[in-house]
Amino acid sequence: MHMSNRISSFQCSPIRRLSPYAREAAKRGIKVYQLNIGQPDIKTPSQVIDAVHSYGETIIAYGNSEGRQELREALPAYYKKFRLDVSPDEILITTGGSEALQFAFMTLCDPYDEVIIPEPYYTNVSSFANIAMVNLVPVTSKFEDGFVLPDIAEFEKKITRKTGAILLCSPNNPTGHIYTAEELLQLLELVKRYDIFLIVDEVYREFCYDGKSFSSVLAFPEYADRVICVDSFSKRYSMCGSRIGALICKNQDVLASALKLAQARLCPPDIEQVAALAALDTDDSYLVEVQAEYEKRRNFIVEGLQKIDGVKCSCPKGAFYLVAELPVDDAERFAVFMLKDFNLDGETVMVAPCEDFYVTKGIGRKQIRLAYVLNTHDLDHAVKCLDAGLKAYRRDVLKETI
Amino acid sequence: MHMSNRISSFQCSPIRRLSPYAREAAKRGIKVYQLNIGQPDIKTPSQVIDAVHSYGETIIAYGNSEGRQELREALPAYYKKFRLDVSPDEILITTGGSEALQFAFMTLCDPYDEVIIPEPYYTNVSSFANIAMVNLVPVTSKFEDGFVLPDIAEFEKKITRKTGAILLCSPNNPTGHIYTAEELLQLLELVKRYDIFLIVDEVYREFCYDGKSFSSVLAFPEYADRVICVDSFSKRYSMCGSRIGALICKNQDVLASALKLAQARLCPPDIEQVAALAALDTDDSYLVEVQAEYEKRRNFIVEGLQKIDGVKCSCPKGAFYLVAELPVDDAERFAVFMLKDFNLDGETVMVAPCEDFYVTKGIGRKQIRLAYVLNTHDLDHAVKCLDAGLKAYRRDVLKETI
Repeated sequence: MHMSNRISSFQCSPIRRLSPYAREAAKRGIKVYQLNIGQPDIKTPSQVIDAVHSYGETIIAYGNSEGRQELREALPAYYKKFRLDVSPDEILITTGGSEALQFAFMTLCDPYDEVIIPEPYYTNVSSFANIAMVNLVPVTSKFEDGFVLPDIAEFEKKITRKTGAILLCSPNNPTGHIYTAEELLQLLELVKRYDIFLIVDEVYREFCYDGKSFSSVLAFPEYADRVICVDSFSKRYSMCGSRIGALICKNQDVLASALKLAQARLCPPDIEQVAALAALDTDDSYLVEVQAEYEKRRNFIVEGLQKIDGVKCSCPKGAFYLVAELPVDDAERFAVFMLKDFNLDGETVMVAPCEDFYVTKGIGRKQIRLAYVLNTHDLDHAVKCLDAGLKAYRRDVLKETI
Repeated sequence: MHMSNRISSFQCSPIRRLSPYAREAAKRGIKVYQLNIGQPDIKTPSQVIDAVHSYGETIIAYGNSEGRQELREALPAYYKKFRLDVSPDEILITTGGSEALQFAFMTLCDPYDEVIIPEPYYTNVSSFANIAMVNLVPVTSKFEDGFVLPDIAEFEKKITRKTGAILLCSPNNPTGHIYTAEELLQLLELVKRYDIFLIVDEVYREFCYDGKSFSSVLAFPEYADRVICVDSFSKRYSMCGSRIGALICKNQDVLASALKLAQARLCPPDIEQVAALAALDTDDSYLVEVQAEYEKRRNFIVEGLQKIDGVKCSCPKGAFYLVAELPVDDAERFAVFMLKDFNLDGETVMVAPCEDFYVTKGIGRKQIRLAYVLNTHDLDHAVKCLDAGLKAYRRDVLKETI
């Protein structure tokens, strides 16, 4: 039976493809700490659940393709807290940040066009690029350098006639890097000079540590017509399952074009938009507490990992991921081992192998992405599992004498 | 500012692109009967709303990419009512039938491949084809013949090396045609002979009139490995805004491939899936009543339309749409006139121009699609508006002496 050739080139998400092993482990009674996926254990703000419980419609009807008008009208006040000037008609509500990224690719790029992206990057972007038939052109940020932004000249070298946009994620998934205002400005000048676009995924905007402040790409009005900002309620309010995001753009031609894609899929899910609207009323103290909690977790896991023999990791500045390099031959093989062949007192850890977070082949084979989305008690167990698991893997699989 | 060339080839949905005129009319105090869109005024079953009100999670978390397991496990009992044998692992829950169609295109077709489709067809399919870079190859079903299925030979003539699938919608949006078991079997034999797939959108399965029974493409097990069925909760339970659909396929290779696309977008919206699960408990009497209500509405509007001078329409057998031919030069121009320049005692009607429901240029320019999703009282007013609007348009715009 002949399916498409292209579908075979799509990856099974390295964040999710090991799930069958995890389910098997759970069936065997093993507790699996899931550090593979950015699913926080933080409670959704209670008024979000309250809003769901008092959903007022008797017909769950199609809404506007642009999203619920009251949600678009409520969002500018949120951006104002960051001194960002966004108006309702610059907002397209999407089904997750995922959809916003896909809309951006389809709107800005023709098939075989290129999008320049620092690697490692959020791996699902490669599927969105595949869907849009866009080629991702990597600029490598290096593990050894703590994944700082590569020199702007490296981006410029990669620009061709086919380049449609540069895509960033800040704070970065998976590296935790936060782009400074100066870095953004350099990139904005570059995209202006070459008449292309800058897309910035800012869904981790609130998650900045060590007192670092966040710089949004929306803070540069003179470049606004070549900027798309991707946003999402998922992480900010721990409501990943709602799949409510947004595409923010001050270029009305871009927005009108993206709307064509939005009209085809009719509307974002309605009840979830009501939940998202309620989320915007969340007291600022919630996000302050969440930020503090993640900073604590980051400190905890980084300290724990750095004590494990042979493990290297730098200290991420934002988001809630880190990339660690392991003393193994192949991080994916190790990840499968942890789920299939290992447990420490009935517990184990699920991690995301990092090789598919790179376009460039051969980098990242020893790296994993960890999402520090569990409380420190669970992280403590997870780190112990990793430590013992690495010893067992090196001894039993790699036959090392350690 | 250079956007993609392809985005300019995307249509603004003819179902939704006149909405700004409708909003302007509403602002002027005009009541607009919306027959342009398949948004029923039927209440969502109360236990669906109840399930939303008692949503039990404290974290709205990512779910499985395949959809909630309990939803997949509950669906087979629904199909059993139609004597269809579907198991949970043959079901991929999607964000609306829209997403299922997109997954099907991407999975079965490479760029520039072809999908054969009877026209007129649900117009948003052309956007989904555009996204997947698939060319829709039409087989024209004719207004004059009541849109019966074109001869199978017409389909066969269109098959080339690039053909990936034939796509049907049954009961049909927009024509109301219901494919018979014999017609399906002929098409199944054709796709088998040419080693391609048959995709059938069955989201209107329950909406069959005049005692006509429905034949599902899932009822032919010997062809099951080349069949994809697209399904949705939207119309059945009047919960269009939830965007919960399904891709049903017994070919596990196809399903595993579609899952890659599902993993990239992470999961369908969670609260809406809880709502959908509750919908499956709806008493059969709900659907019986809804079906009877739509049959009444169909009879009412068809009778009303056939009395209007110059309007032609056939009597649809299923779904809740009909295609009518109007005594005008251009149905879109007339549709805009109705919203901008006309009202009857402060009321008017919004319709969907049909030209974009065809691939073939020049057909359907005088046709509109009407969704008879309003109660007969409203339909009565809508028909009177259409009657008076047509007279006014012919007199004032076309300068006809009638």
